[in-house]
Amino acid sequence: MTDLVEFERRGAVAHLTMNAPGSLNALSDGMLAALKARFTEIAGNHEIKAVVLKGAGKAFCAGHDLKEMQAGRAAEDKGRGYFTDLFARCAEVMQMIPALPQPVIAEVHGIATAAGCQLVASCDMAVAAEGTRFGVNGVNIGLFCSTPMVALTRNVPRKVAFEMLTTGEFIDAARAHEVGLVNRVVPHDQLDSEAAKLADTVASKLSLAVKIGKRAFYDQMMLDTAAAYEHAAAVMVTNMLARDTAEGVQAFIEKRKPDWAE
Amino acid sequence: MTDLVEFERRGAVAHLTMNAPGSLNALSDGMLAALKARFTEIAGNHEIKAVVLKGAGKAFCAGHDLKEMQAGRAAEDKGRGYFTDLFARCAEVMQMIPALPQPVIAEVHGIATAAGCQLVASCDMAVAAEGTRFGVNGVNIGLFCSTPMVALTRNVPRKVAFEMLTTGEFIDAARAHEVGLVNRVVPHDQLDSEAAKLADTVASKLSLAVKIGKRAFYDQMMLDTAAAYEHAAAVMVTNMLARDTAEGVQAFIEKRKPDWAE
Amino acid sequence: MTDLVEFERRGAVAHLTMNAPGSLNALSDGMLAALKARFTEIAGNHEIKAVVLKGAGKAFCAGHDLKEMQAGRAAEDKGRGYFTDLFARCAEVMQMIPALPQPVIAEVHGIATAAGCQLVASCDMAVAAEGTRFGVNGVNIGLFCSTPMVALTRNVPRKVAFEMLTTGEFIDAARAHEVGLVNRVVPHDQLDSEAAKLADTVASKLSLAVKIGKRAFYDQMMLDTAAAYEHAAAVMVTNMLARDTAEGVQAFIEKRKPDWAE
Repeated sequence: MTDLVEFERRGAVAHLTMNAPGSLNALSDGMLAALKARFTEIAGNHEIKAVVLKGAGKAFCAGHDLKEMQAGRAAEDKGRGYFTDLFARCAEVMQMIPALPQPVIAEVHGIATAAGCQLVASCDMAVAAEGTRFGVNGVNIGLFCSTPMVALTRNVPRKVAFEMLTTGEFIDAARAHEVGLVNRVVPHDQLDSEAAKLADTVASKLSLAVKIGKRAFYDQMMLDTAAAYEHAAAVMVTNMLARDTAEGVQAFIEKRKPDWAE
Repeated sequence: MTDLVEFERRGAVAHLTMNAPGSLNALSDGMLAALKARFTEIAGNHEIKAVVLKGAGKAFCAGHDLKEMQAGRAAEDKGRGYFTDLFARCAEVMQMIPALPQPVIAEVHGIATAAGCQLVASCDMAVAAEGTRFGVNGVNIGLFCSTPMVALTRNVPRKVAFEMLTTGEFIDAARAHEVGLVNRVVPHDQLDSEAAKLADTVASKLSLAVKIGKRAFYDQMMLDTAAAYEHAAAVMVTNMLARDTAEGVQAFIEKRKPDWAE
Repeated sequence: MTDLVEFERRGAVAHLTMNAPGSLNALSDGMLAALKARFTEIAGNHEIKAVVLKGAGKAFCAGHDLKEMQAGRAAEDKGRGYFTDLFARCAEVMQMIPALPQPVIAEVHGIATAAGCQLVASCDMAVAAEGTRFGVNGVNIGLFCSTPMVALTRNVPRKVAFEMLTTGEFIDAARAHEVGLVNRVVPHDQLDSEAAKLADTVASKLSLAVKIGKRAFYDQMMLDTAAAYEHAAAVMVTNMLARDTAEGVQAFIEKRKPDWAE
């Protein structure tokens, strides 16, 4: 099953490749299970310090597997049980990404549509090839991208999200960068190296700091400012008291490289 | 009374025109009542699938009717009762827009100031003519645009909103696009056609999907992510079980046009 | 102590200068205390209508004083008590800025890093010199910028903030403007005059309106829309009933300058 998401270690970075190019890496039951398995594996692997997620073939990801979804209608309940379970599983996988200790970078090319666009929005960062197109275009077939919307509206301004969701129209990589959906846009032949470089940069940091910082990032986001500060201040204290942080600060003062234990 | 907001049907789109050009379409008691009446009418009309809102004459809307407001001071309570009622009515009209089943597009030209700028921010989308100027400039006359601020700060970044509110300075259409206050900027002679085109695009979608999607859009916005996903996933299930959505997905798989009942 | 933050009145504007250029205006215990003292003084001074905050020497502010922090480790508790107190004091000073009655403008040059970047984000507005660099680069020494993150994520899009925090990389002034961290970018030799001009503009408004507007700005931000409108509408009524606002509106109608008592 996990062949659907290939795993390659390069140094401290896990490179994941969704590998169902025939379906434009559709988020089938199998693909969702494979992503969940890979994320679970990575969450428990302290040697991995960053993750890159990409798609094999012509596209990053084209969203749900529509044929599989239609097949779900054959059940006695017309699919209600299957769809309920499917969207719960999909939302679970999406939410695993911010919950992972390691930063996750989407490496995006071709198209990222519907739940594929949601996957980009759910990643902590995203690097896109020039020419990539992003859409939440389910509305075109009568299925509003309601769950992708959750991730999208937490990335881009309100009116931009509304337009994408109700027109089904695509935005290009440059516009995706402007509105905050991706961090960097690079020529296609540099996509792999640029995503790897960003991951390597993150992986070179003290992983304890990145881990507690990433968790605090999402934990404090929806709190009111006073509560957010209370939370973040406690995180800073914990961070300061770590042995490697003491060494990191001291090394900076002494203008030398830190001698980190990790 | 409803002559203050003219109503024209073009296909499945309601084109509303605020029609008090002498006051730059000020949101007088009459204008607010007319908008409320039109929105109520449209909310109950299932044949209407999108709405365009524009202003007659030289401007979209210049905010409240200041002369009418000053007249309110003649009351025994110096206007407290009138102002309380006025801002409640105004906030009600503004909040009717996201609550409408149909997407509402502001078609903006000339100026959109104070509550007129709030009206743009409250619409689901906005198309502006080049040269349009946007401001929340009440501070210039000693009346901070506190209620327009509610809509504005839900559209644009924090520091941008703060500057507009405390300096009273205007931003142009290009900047309004950059910061997320409008979706598209077009030459003035294409404003009507571009707003209509955007409305027609939205109106061509399955209205059930747009309707439940629009409601979910605003419902999930302020929830924490987990709660937002729970809500959106339930909406997706409902959407999937609709007859026309089953047909829409199937038609897509079979590469044909859907045969929608609606 | 307050020499660490110099105070100069120019008209109705308080110009504050952090004055520890040797440490790039580090937020030492002394600097935090001096900022708190100055903000407390300004909060109670009704003649001051706007504040400009800048740094002496080569930079705006380079964050915490790392040597002082390391010295805190000598305590029996390894610094836990000191760090807890330090981050609480720092968060208190940051939160004094939105709580001040007067708008506060950061005038930024050189670098603004870690808690120095947080200071920019915490100000109501910011003007930056071309060439200024912004970073939350604590991660480079193993100390994730968790408290600066609170202010940063309330200014810029999510993925932009995540990248800055986990890569430690700097953004320049132009990018800071694009993403909403600063309001204006000007040539270095115009920085002083442009920040002063912006402050003078704000200071020229009716201070009652600015004061209640600023408070409402932050109060309504995290409320759901309906609650935000209820709050803002009450603020508008109070504003309308002020004597100077009545005069301001009337003067506008009569096309004359208002005769304000304040």
